[in-house]
Amino acid sequence: MRALVTGGAGFIGSHLIDRLVARGDEVVVIDNLSSGDLSFIQGHLDSGAVVLVEGDICNPDDVGRAMAMNIDCVFHLAANPDIRLGTRITDTDLKQGTVATYNIVEAMRLNGVKNIAFASSSVVYGENAPMPTPENHGPCMPISLYGASKQAGEGLISSWVGTFGLKAWIFRFANIIGARGTHGVIFDFIHKLKKDPSRLEVLGNGLQEKSYMEVGDCVDGILHVMEHANEPLNLYNLGSHDTASVRRIAEIVVEVTGCHDASIEYTGGDRGWAGDIPRARLGIDNMLASGFDVSMNSEEAIRHTATQLLEEIGLD
Amino acid sequence: MRALVTGGAGFIGSHLIDRLVARGDEVVVIDNLSSGDLSFIQGHLDSGAVVLVEGDICNPDDVGRAMAMNIDCVFHLAANPDIRLGTRITDTDLKQGTVATYNIVEAMRLNGVKNIAFASSSVVYGENAPMPTPENHGPCMPISLYGASKQAGEGLISSWVGTFGLKAWIFRFANIIGARGTHGVIFDFIHKLKKDPSRLEVLGNGLQEKSYMEVGDCVDGILHVMEHANEPLNLYNLGSHDTASVRRIAEIVVEVTGCHDASIEYTGGDRGWAGDIPRARLGIDNMLASGFDVSMNSEEAIRHTATQLLEEIGLD
Repeated sequence: MRALVTGGAGFIGSHLIDRLVARGDEVVVIDNLSSGDLSFIQGHLDSGAVVLVEGDICNPDDVGRAMAMNIDCVFHLAANPDIRLGTRITDTDLKQGTVATYNIVEAMRLNGVKNIAFASSSVVYGENAPMPTPENHGPCMPISLYGASKQAGEGLISSWVGTFGLKAWIFRFANIIGARGTHGVIFDFIHKLKKDPSRLEVLGNGLQEKSYMEVGDCVDGILHVMEHANEPLNLYNLGSHDTASVRRIAEIVVEVTGCHDASIEYTGGDRGWAGDIPRARLGIDNMLASGFDVSMNSEEAIRHTATQLLEEIGLD
Repeated sequence: MRALVTGGAGFIGSHLIDRLVARGDEVVVIDNLSSGDLSFIQGHLDSGAVVLVEGDICNPDDVGRAMAMNIDCVFHLAANPDIRLGTRITDTDLKQGTVATYNIVEAMRLNGVKNIAFASSSVVYGENAPMPTPENHGPCMPISLYGASKQAGEGLISSWVGTFGLKAWIFRFANIIGARGTHGVIFDFIHKLKKDPSRLEVLGNGLQEKSYMEVGDCVDGILHVMEHANEPLNLYNLGSHDTASVRRIAEIVVEVTGCHDASIEYTGGDRGWAGDIPRARLGIDNMLASGFDVSMNSEEAIRHTATQLLEEIGLD
């Protein structure tokens, strides 16, 4: 099989490619290298298992160039990774999320590519959803611009399934963390402690409580579900069984980094920023019913990630 | 109150403006006159009750010009009215629906306008929803490109509510029909009989079964709900109590037009076009609980509309 991975040089993309190459797939990557890093996939580029199309999915010509390479399945992971950015710049998620996803499905139609897996997010559920939140929760009313773009991407894909016969697997991710992370709370905490080991500022009151999934579990889950779910449109939450608080994450990062004297300081308020969802936990019954389970729960995934990122980022 | 009505020269917009003017509101209209018709609101333009900004909501400068006119509330109705178009031209709903709605909410943010009512649609529910379909049905997986753009518009608005403090009323409409209709099945049937009174071609097998709401009921429902629902984000289905089949609509139109000799011919298949939803009926418990009910059910609305449109279109 030949796969096209958008954002393949990024955090989740590069882990997915490790799995795809290991199982013998050919892989084409399109990545604009804005937050991705070629070093994540350099071994596969050197071995010839992966071909890079350096381009931007915001540019239909770049997408068309990649999609013309006899693709069997698209893994559409590329997106603006910074969910907070929408509070300041309001068209980033529209362009890099919604319109870019249009470029992807339209290029699929024009090139006769039929299969797509899409990285959506738990944030499409918005606030006040029951927890754990099942896939059939409604109405989905996202409160962040990133969430709006993920929901719009889901809708574009489902309409291309209904109108043009695509086959799709839509995954609503919990917070995915792990090695090669380029953003997110653990990444931010380590960088803050690197700058000032005596003090760790935490956005909000630290009581935000979310579910975390290790990136290796995430990509294993994607590939497992795609082998076991065969409707025209398949929708799955991917997450772990429990949650962890931001307060607990701060404690773990302080512990793992050895910055035991750091004072953890909270900016206050029940959310980190406008559009942040303070509490989130996905219902994973469908994922479990497909025969897949995670290898780590939230706290294990956090500790593992902190250890990995500390090695990558360093404190010096 | 000063209202901005996008698509105010269109079918639903012009009926809404009749009500707004009658209750003493000042009205600004932005319309590109692509499917709207100034004659629908000419009386209000002449009286000075309505001011027209001729412009396109796809153009942020045009939207900004209208939004700067001390607007208290936006009624965002403008959209591509031709749901079938998406099967041939795939970027119309993206541009005129999704991106245009971004232009609206962003101009609201920049101009400090806080209130928006949005015309969404039953098609956001996609296929295979339980009927009647309640607002909390999930997952919403639209199968038409028009449906995807309505869902994306809902998400943009809900994210502007969550991030920037807008207040919103989102209405998921049944099939809205009535005088001044510029598209839709009754409009099409009358035009077909005008061209050839001996024959009426019906797309699909005629067993498509949907709920119809008279446009006067629709705009009354909008204004009633906005007075009675005061959450930051309010989501209401607007529809009637029952459904009618396309076969029944064809019979009524043949009867009303007096083309009694017309043979009704079905193209076959269980839907009119790729992306058409064969059966749809909205749950209206929330609408009823707000204290509003329709004055006509589906068949009455169809007969009323056929009579009105016959007068407007004529058969000669």
